[in-house]
Amino acid sequence: MRIPELIEKKRDGRELTSEEIRFFVEGYTRGDIPDYQAAAWCMAVFFRGMTRRETADLTLAMAHSGEMLDLHDIAPIVVDKHSSGGVGDKVSLIVAPLVAASGLHVGKMSGRGLGFSGGTVDKLESIPGMRLTLSLPEFKKQLKKVGLVLTGQSADLAPADGKLYALRDVTGTVQSIPLIASSVMSKKIAGGAQAIVLDVKVGRGAFMETLPEARALARAMVGIGKLVKRRTVALLSDMNQPLGHAVGNALEVREAIDTLHNGGPADFREHCLTVAAHLLVLAGKADRLAAARKLATAALADGSAWERFRAFVEAQGGDVATIEQPERLPAADLVDVVRAPRSGYLREIDAREVGLAAVDLGAGRHKKSDPIDYAVGFVIHHKVGDRVVKGEPLFTVHANDRKRLAVARERVLAAHVIAAGKAAPLPLFYGVIR
Amino acid sequence: MRIPELIEKKRDGRELTSEEIRFFVEGYTRGDIPDYQAAAWCMAVFFRGMTRRETADLTLAMAHSGEMLDLHDIAPIVVDKHSSGGVGDKVSLIVAPLVAASGLHVGKMSGRGLGFSGGTVDKLESIPGMRLTLSLPEFKKQLKKVGLVLTGQSADLAPADGKLYALRDVTGTVQSIPLIASSVMSKKIAGGAQAIVLDVKVGRGAFMETLPEARALARAMVGIGKLVKRRTVALLSDMNQPLGHAVGNALEVREAIDTLHNGGPADFREHCLTVAAHLLVLAGKADRLAAARKLATAALADGSAWERFRAFVEAQGGDVATIEQPERLPAADLVDVVRAPRSGYLREIDAREVGLAAVDLGAGRHKKSDPIDYAVGFVIHHKVGDRVVKGEPLFTVHANDRKRLAVARERVLAAHVIAAGKAAPLPLFYGVIR
Repeated sequence: MRIPELIEKKRDGRELTSEEIRFFVEGYTRGDIPDYQAAAWCMAVFFRGMTRRETADLTLAMAHSGEMLDLHDIAPIVVDKHSSGGVGDKVSLIVAPLVAASGLHVGKMSGRGLGFSGGTVDKLESIPGMRLTLSLPEFKKQLKKVGLVLTGQSADLAPADGKLYALRDVTGTVQSIPLIASSVMSKKIAGGAQAIVLDVKVGRGAFMETLPEARALARAMVGIGKLVKRRTVALLSDMNQPLGHAVGNALEVREAIDTLHNGGPADFREHCLTVAAHLLVLAGKADRLAAARKLATAALADGSAWERFRAFVEAQGGDVATIEQPERLPAADLVDVVRAPRSGYLREIDAREVGLAAVDLGAGRHKKSDPIDYAVGFVIHHKVGDRVVKGEPLFTVHANDRKRLAVARERVLAAHVIAAGKAAPLPLFYGVIR
Repeated sequence: MRIPELIEKKRDGRELTSEEIRFFVEGYTRGDIPDYQAAAWCMAVFFRGMTRRETADLTLAMAHSGEMLDLHDIAPIVVDKHSSGGVGDKVSLIVAPLVAASGLHVGKMSGRGLGFSGGTVDKLESIPGMRLTLSLPEFKKQLKKVGLVLTGQSADLAPADGKLYALRDVTGTVQSIPLIASSVMSKKIAGGAQAIVLDVKVGRGAFMETLPEARALARAMVGIGKLVKRRTVALLSDMNQPLGHAVGNALEVREAIDTLHNGGPADFREHCLTVAAHLLVLAGKADRLAAARKLATAALADGSAWERFRAFVEAQGGDVATIEQPERLPAADLVDVVRAPRSGYLREIDAREVGLAAVDLGAGRHKKSDPIDYAVGFVIHHKVGDRVVKGEPLFTVHANDRKRLAVARERVLAAHVIAAGKAAPLPLFYGVIR
């Protein structure tokens, strides 16, 4: 098989065979196929797309490029959830312990922040002592013992995806639905999950800005799930405004702790209950969503979700005292309450701008090697559609540097659009893809 | 300037600025931009194309990536011709000495065979002793002294093109009109030619198989020529059947020698006179094509074109005795005359098949390192439209290996389509782009 011919075949819009896709992925992982040929191939895929069959073949080839976790000896069904990334998205911190408390095994590998989007691994690292680089044997051991494990992506799973993703990142080939879908699903499949809920974000603070794009990505991922016989559901959820109130690592952990104590912002709580209910139905813990919701609501109310979170933090070396007394989590020196400059209705809170402002404060990275300031970020006090009165608190900035605080304050203020006329609240979800 | 953004800009169909194109070409030539980013960029160009302005900027940036020959101290105007490649295309061997004999300075760098297409450098190397790797000072010296120099492409001219072409060759990005046009023109411009005739072949034995493609390439190249103020004309010429009769290096040199002695196949002679006439008009040696043709015809008839060819061969170390007595050129051991299997009219002589059969005999290379057998090839005795009578010679195979001869014989026989009904002859030219 000649690689230039394989590139030309995709370039000319012809369908690659399973064998050709396997040959490409295996050759690239081994280093027999150089980066420059893989880059040209990715760009051809960007323009020509892939059929469902091709996308599933690519996913499986990448999944099989490294270890394939088999978790059947640990639990009949291990579940996972995945978010396509957003601002203030601390859903995993609630949903994972919540469904674990309801009797499911949750084995999840998460990512770090990327651009304006936060990452679960960064958030959990704001808890002193937390280890998020578990080996695969440690992963399995904790899954068995605690029923819940949340760690960083293992380099032993789907190494082809790791290599290809790094290449796509520098060659303008990230934004391709089959490439995104196969990247996500290859890791999930190699990770051994049998039931997966995909939380596909759409809007200003998401990687998919429009509903048709988000729907296409969701369909591609669910299609792969079906072809490889994993129970998969995708939710299309709003990411035009930040989810919940807190944006920034330790601030989000505090909001998660509030929520696990049966409090937290209403929109965020609702979002978590919906995701959890879908997971419970998928895994057979309830027949219907309404029943699943009851289970989930109870796990928040009776403290079992919180207990499971505490056990998980303890198992991974986290300082339990800091989550029992969240004021001991990293806190910023400068806390500045910004007030509404006029009365009116909140028409927009641009999530991307808020996310980028948080990165500027130090909550995320401009480049890979940047250190993270876990303490900084924002608490946004309102949601789109709210009536605000001039002079009342609009948002709070948590910063460790006066100059950066001033810049972030202006940027987030500009991200709030207050209009005279009434504004409709934003929906939480736009649909479900099964 | 970030390279991924530059790739994305082209990917999304936005026009790159002159500065961005220069930045890309300079960075890639220096090695600051890795092959994988250049490959993704080339594939984006493949899909999105380039505006005339972008193509001209790319051409100039590649031309300026190495030495720029300034030949004004040698002659007021130096001319060049370029063929897009074909089968039996030995036009440069006639046109270059012909217009040199008419008083023009011809400084030309040529290529080697590529796939089914022959190359002028390979053809000239069948003359024992010929040196086709002149340095730039040697190039200039001979241009001044003989008025005619024909050598291989210098690595000192347009090195960016050399590097990018090698990358395109293995990444499925050769077939892009702006990339082909800028590749050709960057070398011509760096080579110092002020007037250029482009012979763009179209048909089965050409890289552009259809007239719209060939016309688009011709327009792109003429457009670049205009923007950089070089007098440029492109001819669209037929390459469905081989040009002239001979296909194969020494066989083509013999046919060229016949033609320079005022003989040779009618179609080939006519083609050469037309190309030469355009060059003479471009360079101001004649006002109109008819007058230029007279000059060209005279240079063949009075022996001055032949004299100039001999002087050129001598200047580059070629054994003049072998061109004065062409039977001393490399000759094959096996000469097999193949006769017409039936009577009728020649409807087709598939030039690509003839070219590939010649490569199989050893006249070209399957891979870069293959040696060339200068003696082998074919003499095709007829043209499309000719009446042939069963049993008369159809073509002659010159080979050095019985097995290869048998295979080539069948392949070229199959390339001849003899039909009962009359068939129209093929035109030589399809148009002129100025």
